[in-house]
Amino acid sequence: MAKLYVVGIGPGGAEDMTLRADRALRESDIIIGYTVYVELLRPRYPEKEFLSTSMTREAERCRLALEAARSGKTVALVCSGDSGVYGMAALVYEVRGGAAEPAVEVVPGLTAACSGAALLGAPLTHDFAAVSLSDRLTPWEAIEKRLAAAAEADFCIVLYNPASRGRPEHLRRACEVLLRHLPPERPCGIARNIAREGEQRRFCTLAELQDAEADMFCTVFVGSSATRMLGGEMVTPRGYRDV
Amino acid sequence: MAKLYVVGIGPGGAEDMTLRADRALRESDIIIGYTVYVELLRPRYPEKEFLSTSMTREAERCRLALEAARSGKTVALVCSGDSGVYGMAALVYEVRGGAAEPAVEVVPGLTAACSGAALLGAPLTHDFAAVSLSDRLTPWEAIEKRLAAAAEADFCIVLYNPASRGRPEHLRRACEVLLRHLPPERPCGIARNIAREGEQRRFCTLAELQDAEADMFCTVFVGSSATRMLGGEMVTPRGYRDV
Repeated sequence: MAKLYVVGIGPGGAEDMTLRADRALRESDIIIGYTVYVELLRPRYPEKEFLSTSMTREAERCRLALEAARSGKTVALVCSGDSGVYGMAALVYEVRGGAAEPAVEVVPGLTAACSGAALLGAPLTHDFAAVSLSDRLTPWEAIEKRLAAAAEADFCIVLYNPASRGRPEHLRRACEVLLRHLPPERPCGIARNIAREGEQRRFCTLAELQDAEADMFCTVFVGSSATRMLGGEMVTPRGYRDV
Repeated sequence: MAKLYVVGIGPGGAEDMTLRADRALRESDIIIGYTVYVELLRPRYPEKEFLSTSMTREAERCRLALEAARSGKTVALVCSGDSGVYGMAALVYEVRGGAAEPAVEVVPGLTAACSGAALLGAPLTHDFAAVSLSDRLTPWEAIEKRLAAAAEADFCIVLYNPASRGRPEHLRRACEVLLRHLPPERPCGIARNIAREGEQRRFCTLAELQDAEADMFCTVFVGSSATRMLGGEMVTPRGYRDV
């Protein structure tokens, strides 16, 4: 049966993929993805056919994947992190439209909120909000509104896409918004190259985060009022009463 | 080397565990967890020693795990879903306090936001907020404030712990708050027993969600202004301009 898997491969290393994702890739005839992820997977699945496109060609990648599945192949379209959160699953459904064919199965993966939090300690124990600072597809005003709302309601906040070559100042602008609602000493953390070569973690205050270096390989965590540094880790207690 | 892994095993079936989680369990001498999860894992790791406690004894479970690791064993403390998000990782660090020993490694897992979203389609493509409706450890007023803020700032919203035997009316009360900010026809979805026997998905409007049956095995998704039903799936487009 022709089928399209939309597979989240997690933060990078094959070890952070689920067993189900691994099975979906093994079952597939063709693996399609952004060049960098395809190169990560090729050594692990040497017998597969691989197709890659450049980063911004998301819709083209979905069309390729749907066409290959319609032609009778089992296809895996791979995304880093989760296939849903800031991933390609929605776009696959959009490009497929109302059609029932080919069958699509979304295979979830570890999103950077979870894998980055594990690297930093346990900052996301309780309610949190995920906000992307990329304004490629979202007006900056909407991003600012979400940041302000999340800060005011005392969510832990995870910032995806904190900066890139084209928009190095986004993290600073986001911090300016957050600092209207949060104290400058609020604990923050930066996870970089999670589960990949060059993995790094850094901790700082919200005031320091304004001037922190962050690039497209970073995920940034801003604590809630309960978050604190504990034994070198960034920790948001759940508040278990019997500790 | 004695070590404590805090392992998120994902939504239930062993297939939704990462390869790293599987390796951590294989490396461990003792696996500790809530009775239900221990019973799920026992057939897969028959040679391990298992220790279980009832659901509300979280701090006791952490103490057991830390003591076993201090005595020289490699220990895995398991959580369903992620080990961070509404999980035990923070509590482990709290109970360990400022001590550097034993070494702790948080192994992330698929949280219900990601695994439930994959079951329902792709509702969490963009910015989202996760809110637990359990007031066991959080005042209900704080929960209402977060719901209102998330709705007003147009986040997709994931509701953890929408109801339980002790608090069956929480989902209705949450919907009342959301309906002050969101239209009654807003698409919603309920994922139940994700990746386990009896897995189910249901879709409804926010008005209908008020009276929907939901229990402690459910995770509830409330769409953003962009979310719609598409080919039978709940989809929030990322807004790729080239579709």
